[in-house]
Amino acid sequence: MTNAVAVHGVGTSHFGRQPERDLVALAWDAVHEAFTDAGVEEVDAVWVGTVFGPPGVAQRVLRAMGITGIPVITVENACASGTTAFAEAHEAVRTGRYERVLALGIEQMSTAFDGAITPEDTDPEGRTGLALPALYAMAAARYLHLGAATPEQLAAVSVKNHAHALHNPRAQYSGRYTVEEVLASRMIADPLTLLQCCPTSDGAAAAVLGPATGGSREVRVRGLALRSGVPWNHASPHVWGHDIVRDTAADALAAAELADVADVDVLEVHDAFTIGEIVTTEALGLVKPGDGGAAAARGDTALGGAHPVNPSGGLLSRGHPLGATGLAQIAEITWQLRDEAGARQVEGARLGLVETMGGGVSVLDGNACVVVLLEAP
Amino acid sequence: MTNAVAVHGVGTSHFGRQPERDLVALAWDAVHEAFTDAGVEEVDAVWVGTVFGPPGVAQRVLRAMGITGIPVITVENACASGTTAFAEAHEAVRTGRYERVLALGIEQMSTAFDGAITPEDTDPEGRTGLALPALYAMAAARYLHLGAATPEQLAAVSVKNHAHALHNPRAQYSGRYTVEEVLASRMIADPLTLLQCCPTSDGAAAAVLGPATGGSREVRVRGLALRSGVPWNHASPHVWGHDIVRDTAADALAAAELADVADVDVLEVHDAFTIGEIVTTEALGLVKPGDGGAAAARGDTALGGAHPVNPSGGLLSRGHPLGATGLAQIAEITWQLRDEAGARQVEGARLGLVETMGGGVSVLDGNACVVVLLEAP
Repeated sequence: MTNAVAVHGVGTSHFGRQPERDLVALAWDAVHEAFTDAGVEEVDAVWVGTVFGPPGVAQRVLRAMGITGIPVITVENACASGTTAFAEAHEAVRTGRYERVLALGIEQMSTAFDGAITPEDTDPEGRTGLALPALYAMAAARYLHLGAATPEQLAAVSVKNHAHALHNPRAQYSGRYTVEEVLASRMIADPLTLLQCCPTSDGAAAAVLGPATGGSREVRVRGLALRSGVPWNHASPHVWGHDIVRDTAADALAAAELADVADVDVLEVHDAFTIGEIVTTEALGLVKPGDGGAAAARGDTALGGAHPVNPSGGLLSRGHPLGATGLAQIAEITWQLRDEAGARQVEGARLGLVETMGGGVSVLDGNACVVVLLEAP
Repeated sequence: MTNAVAVHGVGTSHFGRQPERDLVALAWDAVHEAFTDAGVEEVDAVWVGTVFGPPGVAQRVLRAMGITGIPVITVENACASGTTAFAEAHEAVRTGRYERVLALGIEQMSTAFDGAITPEDTDPEGRTGLALPALYAMAAARYLHLGAATPEQLAAVSVKNHAHALHNPRAQYSGRYTVEEVLASRMIADPLTLLQCCPTSDGAAAAVLGPATGGSREVRVRGLALRSGVPWNHASPHVWGHDIVRDTAADALAAAELADVADVDVLEVHDAFTIGEIVTTEALGLVKPGDGGAAAARGDTALGGAHPVNPSGGLLSRGHPLGATGLAQIAEITWQLRDEAGARQVEGARLGLVETMGGGVSVLDGNACVVVLLEAP
């Protein structure tokens, strides 16, 4: 038995530092909206993505909203935890294991860390100082060194995504910044300045999945791929993350029977740092190698451009509550494909792509990547 | 596409307090043995169960043994995390998603806690003092109050499982104790004494799953069920855990097309505390309600009895490294069904059952339960 799978409803909390709220309150916002959107009052099983949520938290959160007595499986796959939950929920519907499944992502970073993620004691690379901002900074430095991007092009990604977020009332940050202002913000890890780094975010996002029935508001899952366990290949000329994104995207395009990523109308990709979006657009094949920064600076990846990337504001501006991020991306693309994205709507979007990539707390743990292709009703 | 699924190989580390080792070393022991046992050098995907392992640890552990470039999904389901990983691996083979899958459980409790699991700050019940030993003690007190068990019958479970473990070289503890010695050991949570509580354990366990091909060493998965999200029903006359074990076992027996649990020859069940095994044998329907303690005292559930329970020594004696426990149980039943369990072999065992049940850090988070029925080659 193999079902075509559709997203029947999505929902999210507001994104931002919300230490006064808890995971139950955040999840409630997302699940209530997703259930209402899907027109359902119950599901048959739940997959929950979280990275720093304590053991058992998923069941506590779900029980608080009366969702009990069904299988609940919590998954962790670093920054791709939310899309991993989506992938598992999708597989359960595809194979007929369950009919209606909730994928939920939850994370409260503000109460877990004071600033950036702190590598824990058993993490050998983290202990050397190779925390995530440092890692992305090394990739950015290499791009600058090779002439594959300029500091101004890095900053252009931040300018674009903060401007996109002006039209997203759920975004953590937004603003009309200039390239100069982005470059002048506080240095976090050279060459990445504060406005080029995702903030500390709390939030939740959810999707209800079920068999595709041709409904007028159903967004179909056209293809999906998940890879992980790939450490940085030091023999590769590419920077960290490029190869796993490229390979996972190729798998997803093949699953969707799509020959060309250029056919995709709107994308939400993993821009935890500005360099991340540049590397990703290149790895996806959306732009030529070395042209990712220039494409952002030219406006190709902005709303109104040829390939709008991160209309929600992305991780940089909407925020990055780790386990929730993937499902926030799914929600944004679902709204886009249903023509419900308001002032940030990509006109006539028929095909959307979600990409999430993360490592463990440190790069050498290996990465995880999920790519999903969604299709308008 | 639906495959019959078999366990092709299993492996475990030694169990015990091993703070000088790390998760990589523990996992290596389990995975190397399971791969050798299965006669494979690679798998197509991995599900990893851990409760307190840090984010990304699964990929780091797997990469250290050269297992990279394939999907790795970490699952958490409290004490049932290992069997949840097994359930997800089983589903992937059953549906043809992947052909050969590794289920791995890893946990190092000795470096995470000084003594019993400490509920974290956001756990409302844990903050009231309802930690796991207290919770099981309340169930035991109720059994004593109702006359459904005596202190001596509780102790008999400990006597039995410690004696079983004498024949298990991987067990953390073993010994020939008397009922009096068990009752005289230090009180942990009245009426549960030290020898009635599982120890703090480090360990790993693994299983390689693939399609059943009728091989002479393949242990077939006859049926499997997973439930979770069920909070304690205060309207139930039963103590915590009874109802979810009963319902999950009923699902698993139905999936296995077995009418009577009495047909099962050997069982590994969740005896984190002595009362747990008594409640579980009753909930499974192996013994009559209120007869679990008497059955243990009579030797019905001992090696040589009608329904041997926990020949490995169980959580009480083999040890309880949370995420690894379920797969340690799977390994024991696999050895039993292949007639490879040495001095603790249940003669002619053809049908085995694994049951794992856990809550979050506190009971009101909701429980998770997995029941697996395995069949001899």
